[in-house]
Amino acid sequence: MVDLLKLIRNVPDFPIPGIQFKDITTLVHDKEGFKESCDKLAEIYKNRGITKVVGIEARGYIFGSVVAYLIGAGFVLIRKPGKLPAETYEMEYSLEYGTNKIEIHKDSIAKGEKVLIVDDLLATGGTAIASARLIEKAGGIVEEMAFVIELSGSLKGREAITKAGYKFSSLLEIPVDE
Amino acid sequence: MVDLLKLIRNVPDFPIPGIQFKDITTLVHDKEGFKESCDKLAEIYKNRGITKVVGIEARGYIFGSVVAYLIGAGFVLIRKPGKLPAETYEMEYSLEYGTNKIEIHKDSIAKGEKVLIVDDLLATGGTAIASARLIEKAGGIVEEMAFVIELSGSLKGREAITKAGYKFSSLLEIPVDE
Repeated sequence: MVDLLKLIRNVPDFPIPGIQFKDITTLVHDKEGFKESCDKLAEIYKNRGITKVVGIEARGYIFGSVVAYLIGAGFVLIRKPGKLPAETYEMEYSLEYGTNKIEIHKDSIAKGEKVLIVDDLLATGGTAIASARLIEKAGGIVEEMAFVIELSGSLKGREAITKAGYKFSSLLEIPVDE
Repeated sequence: MVDLLKLIRNVPDFPIPGIQFKDITTLVHDKEGFKESCDKLAEIYKNRGITKVVGIEARGYIFGSVVAYLIGAGFVLIRKPGKLPAETYEMEYSLEYGTNKIEIHKDSIAKGEKVLIVDDLLATGGTAIASARLIEKAGGIVEEMAFVIELSGSLKGREAITKAGYKFSSLLEIPVDE
């Protein structure tokens, strides 16, 4: 057993002053830590009829693709606008300041497919919920969301996801100060 | 055996008119195709003493992370400027018009580690060669580069990589018209 929490690096003031950024690169550099995180996520989601794993650009691809491989699912990319080459559905959502937009290929998910969303970190849940809506627009059923880290406390991501009607799991919970 | 080539979608005029974009998303959507691509790459690179797999943002993460998992290596991110939170080395390189810059975390590779570079597609080889130089700056030894697709012919990626002193493999070779 690897102490995964010890492999997460705290970077103060990134990307802007006042933010304590939780860096998963130090976890994925470590072969045992990386393997164990992926194995633990796959263990939760195997044998649940999930046929597509959706990764959120870009760090979500690192864990999402391995989980897809391990549970025998296809992998689907959610990307920022203009990056996917074929026809897409898009979803705009609000941030604290301004809005953001994400896209998914129209042919990435068949109607009724069970989908798992994977990202490295749950903060406010805004991107994950927008991703879930986008997957539903494409015809998929969001089985659950999986994160390596949940920032718990004042960001209220847990509450937002629950309120939006979704379930999630995370490997590590890191409390955020008010 | 899956016909991987059939799973690659050609998208005309993306990202700009005249380019025939080779889209790997249709390959990774397909669970058998995705699994077989990853297995084939891992088969080539297992038992070669590779301790780090470097993925090039963003599609390189999809295959690179699975290969890292399968051969028991750590995974390292090469990113566009400003995305990595801790101290980085950077490398600027020339494109047909203008320049591009990529970064790697200073602590991502220990001195003398054997490194495999993974990306989805070899075109001119510019990004892959810049990535190799960056890995050497960080102390690593570039064992080889691996691509899902090699665009062969007029782009001369093969020639550029060979001339720069590196070796590579690819799962699929797609000729590009002059």
